[in-house]
Amino acid sequence: MAEGTKMRIGFLGLGIMGEAMARNLLKSGLFASVTVWNRTLAKCQTLVSEGAQSAETPAAVVAACDVTFAMLADPDAALAAVFGENGVLAAIAPGKGYVDMSTVDEATSTKIGEAITAKGGKFVEGPVSGSKKPAIDGQLIIMGAGDKELYDLVQPAFGVMGKKSFFLGATGAAARMKLVVNMVMGSMMGAFCEGMALADKAGLEQSALLEILGLGAMANPMFALKGPAIMARSYPPAFPLKHQQKDLRLALALGDSLNQPLPVAAAANEAFKDAKGKGRGDDDFAAVYEATQQ
Amino acid sequence: MAEGTKMRIGFLGLGIMGEAMARNLLKSGLFASVTVWNRTLAKCQTLVSEGAQSAETPAAVVAACDVTFAMLADPDAALAAVFGENGVLAAIAPGKGYVDMSTVDEATSTKIGEAITAKGGKFVEGPVSGSKKPAIDGQLIIMGAGDKELYDLVQPAFGVMGKKSFFLGATGAAARMKLVVNMVMGSMMGAFCEGMALADKAGLEQSALLEILGLGAMANPMFALKGPAIMARSYPPAFPLKHQQKDLRLALALGDSLNQPLPVAAAANEAFKDAKGKGRGDDDFAAVYEATQQ
Amino acid sequence: MAEGTKMRIGFLGLGIMGEAMARNLLKSGLFASVTVWNRTLAKCQTLVSEGAQSAETPAAVVAACDVTFAMLADPDAALAAVFGENGVLAAIAPGKGYVDMSTVDEATSTKIGEAITAKGGKFVEGPVSGSKKPAIDGQLIIMGAGDKELYDLVQPAFGVMGKKSFFLGATGAAARMKLVVNMVMGSMMGAFCEGMALADKAGLEQSALLEILGLGAMANPMFALKGPAIMARSYPPAFPLKHQQKDLRLALALGDSLNQPLPVAAAANEAFKDAKGKGRGDDDFAAVYEATQQ
Amino acid sequence: MAEGTKMRIGFLGLGIMGEAMARNLLKSGLFASVTVWNRTLAKCQTLVSEGAQSAETPAAVVAACDVTFAMLADPDAALAAVFGENGVLAAIAPGKGYVDMSTVDEATSTKIGEAITAKGGKFVEGPVSGSKKPAIDGQLIIMGAGDKELYDLVQPAFGVMGKKSFFLGATGAAARMKLVVNMVMGSMMGAFCEGMALADKAGLEQSALLEILGLGAMANPMFALKGPAIMARSYPPAFPLKHQQKDLRLALALGDSLNQPLPVAAAANEAFKDAKGKGRGDDDFAAVYEATQQ
Repeated sequence: MAEGTKMRIGFLGLGIMGEAMARNLLKSGLFASVTVWNRTLAKCQTLVSEGAQSAETPAAVVAACDVTFAMLADPDAALAAVFGENGVLAAIAPGKGYVDMSTVDEATSTKIGEAITAKGGKFVEGPVSGSKKPAIDGQLIIMGAGDKELYDLVQPAFGVMGKKSFFLGATGAAARMKLVVNMVMGSMMGAFCEGMALADKAGLEQSALLEILGLGAMANPMFALKGPAIMARSYPPAFPLKHQQKDLRLALALGDSLNQPLPVAAAANEAFKDAKGKGRGDDDFAAVYEATQQ
Repeated sequence: MAEGTKMRIGFLGLGIMGEAMARNLLKSGLFASVTVWNRTLAKCQTLVSEGAQSAETPAAVVAACDVTFAMLADPDAALAAVFGENGVLAAIAPGKGYVDMSTVDEATSTKIGEAITAKGGKFVEGPVSGSKKPAIDGQLIIMGAGDKELYDLVQPAFGVMGKKSFFLGATGAAARMKLVVNMVMGSMMGAFCEGMALADKAGLEQSALLEILGLGAMANPMFALKGPAIMARSYPPAFPLKHQQKDLRLALALGDSLNQPLPVAAAANEAFKDAKGKGRGDDDFAAVYEATQQ
Repeated sequence: MAEGTKMRIGFLGLGIMGEAMARNLLKSGLFASVTVWNRTLAKCQTLVSEGAQSAETPAAVVAACDVTFAMLADPDAALAAVFGENGVLAAIAPGKGYVDMSTVDEATSTKIGEAITAKGGKFVEGPVSGSKKPAIDGQLIIMGAGDKELYDLVQPAFGVMGKKSFFLGATGAAARMKLVVNMVMGSMMGAFCEGMALADKAGLEQSALLEILGLGAMANPMFALKGPAIMARSYPPAFPLKHQQKDLRLALALGDSLNQPLPVAAAANEAFKDAKGKGRGDDDFAAVYEATQQ
Repeated sequence: MAEGTKMRIGFLGLGIMGEAMARNLLKSGLFASVTVWNRTLAKCQTLVSEGAQSAETPAAVVAACDVTFAMLADPDAALAAVFGENGVLAAIAPGKGYVDMSTVDEATSTKIGEAITAKGGKFVEGPVSGSKKPAIDGQLIIMGAGDKELYDLVQPAFGVMGKKSFFLGATGAAARMKLVVNMVMGSMMGAFCEGMALADKAGLEQSALLEILGLGAMANPMFALKGPAIMARSYPPAFPLKHQQKDLRLALALGDSLNQPLPVAAAANEAFKDAKGKGRGDDDFAAVYEATQQ
């Protein structure tokens, strides 16, 4: 791609997150074009009406673009978009880049990265922290790893989609960082729910505990957001408990492979398993509170 | 005490916290007088030079004041000030109030409260959240319990010393709330340190983890403050690790008495014990990071 | 006591264990006399009909005997027998010995030992391992600590009541050893119940697991005895769960005071607390199995 | 195979265990022939000198025999023997049976079983409990699963190699049972080592703890065998710690898939990870004691 030329951007996957991210790229006016694809093609029409191009296969998107981003539902979808018929691999080539922002495990990311690289393309993994609202507001936190040149090249796009991006090292590093972050989150939620449960058993108002925590050094948006859900024992899913438990399991396995004991996370993981066994797998991960109830 | 009359205030204990709290009461101009006492009497002179009165015994302070506050080092000091020779009990009487803001266990607080009440005085326990800086800035969080009338009466004083106060119920409730809060804090610190350790073992920059956590839903002042200490593995004590471990032990005992399992806190407690065994008892409680290192 | 003279033996406390132990002492014919006392004096009659003497107070027993043994229900009963009106202290004197075989905590044992010693008496603490049947069969395991001369002197009595006795050191050592033993027992039971639960969830017969464990290196009487109770989910109390949980708590506190992390025991303790919260405190400690069920 | 005819037996894998097992089959005189194979063929010569046949490939063994047993080092070796060139699959056929006694995970066992069955053969998985000595003595405990007819048919062989065999259900059940058994073993060892560590810290002789445990309801061969190793802090490997940790990890994953919380095993697993991180992976699993030392 020549210096000074505007990049042609592709985007695969128009779910809740993906559509918002692609729209922000489109609205920025920074790119020569934004070409979108979704497994259910009809989902492309809104963005096309707003000025995007669409293509019928991932390969067609990659063929038409300098850099293609992806935000797909899970590892299977991420693998299918790359390795499937008319997938990314069919069109990737030297001079083209692929940035997978889906949340996938390190093995999946590595497999995709190796295949892209083998065809001469450049690859960046870029999982995000944040959900629907930050995606709409362009306030995601982007954890990047893989090819540093491509990472630098797509800074304008990351700047549109997120409030901050980090380059963490070779492919796999971003997947690992996401696990570490989610492990801390799961343990913190487990700790918080034990506090809420103990307050209740000790005859203290849970709302007072929330207020006190909210005024001190531990104050954080998560406690403020999830506290009322716990008090109501109603957990509409933002981050499903079964996914949090899976991330804890994977983080413990990572610790295992590195001989890093993680006893607090291990205890939290068992609490999440207990809640899952109580039928809370599809509830929000704050439902680990149910594990404290007998 | 007649309505519309300014209260005469006493203050026992001029340690780092107590001196700052007494000074804020003095500077407010809201009270007829502020009479201070400290076990080492010489410590009173600075405040006297700023306009306070001083007295030679706790009993003399109580005799001269409507309400006496205390901020003493530990349960033994709190008990000595009340039950010792020329202690609070020697002068407390109907119409007088005693507000103990020291951090003590529920049994100590209950024992003091019962003795005060038996003499016709009113008692409030008022442990605080926050350390030196919030004490100086009048930004403490005050957990109150005991006599509601006295609690209401001293609202002006609490308003000078803290940014918020809570009335939590009968004597003992504030001590329990403090334990719950510190239990959550200990578990959170344990979770955070495991994340820092796993990041390091997984080849990730701890500073990047700190930044990412600081931008997301888990962002909180404690991680921001303690993260650099952990990275430097240098832990100047703000809250000594052995005190955090003691609070975890007491919180687990509280859970025990209420049949509330607390497996995450129990795992964190063992990590703090490990760090204590590694000679970190007098370091800051962030030194629980050392328990993750082999 | 002169060499070659038969000892006059006293025995305080004729509960299930105590009566059996006193009877064995009586039947042995090794002693000049066996004088018994029980809080409910009527309980003495059976042994009197078998040849024992009885006395109306602990002091009277001690006055009449060279060495007095005690097997009392709990620390309160043990303290009352020594410090109460007409208690052991009223009659203990140089040349007399007191052997407390009750299960009490180290502080209680130390307090009793110091009081006895201050009066010139000799003291041995001798808690036992084993319950009703071994008491009847004279097959208890006796953990002794305190005065080594007295320990040696009462070897014939220990030989009648137990199959083996151990001298463990200064007063308190036997109480600590009992905690260590019971901590291992509680953790083992927790481990066993998790295995039984996982077998069931994994579609395996629990009876097959019991048989396989019973044939291997882990084979032990406890699994063999408690396995069928767990399969029936019926737990007639031999060792009440709340006592096991209390011993775990005390062992963890001992570890705490010695900076010894005990994460497996801590996790087991939380499981026992969970079972206690599920109303199983008075069931046998094998009911910790209920903590594995959701 | 006709009734009343002696079976022709094959045996793949002549490691420490396998050679002893094959020899017992040979010496029993119950079988028409015993044909052995080992990856390093020279290892066959001793048994040939004692009366066995040998063959150059697994396929050749299967071709020559009614039922072929295998005792291979690990899942990779087990898979290679079946799926590799001239492997079991090349010769298995209706009327022939394959009994894999190697310790492999459920997925490996299932994969082998499906391949054997697809060719019309019968398959039994038969992992054992017990190591070198029981193998020599014909005292193994055999956990069988898969084809019940084949299981019944090989009872005479199992009777020669082991003291007891169990039929546990469809293929995979025996692999799961082995995980459950080893999970209990790992947690028990963790509990035991904490007891040994606490005894030491509490000023008690570890040898006294061993004796006391050995006389009570928890007495078991494993504590008796491993106690002295722990006291010497020297751990010649019988069952390597890294294998025990792997089995704990797999058992926890099994619990995960079945929503069975296993907090005691999870805590034990972290202790084994700690010991592994301290360089004890190749020591005996009793070296988890090192995790209790700071």
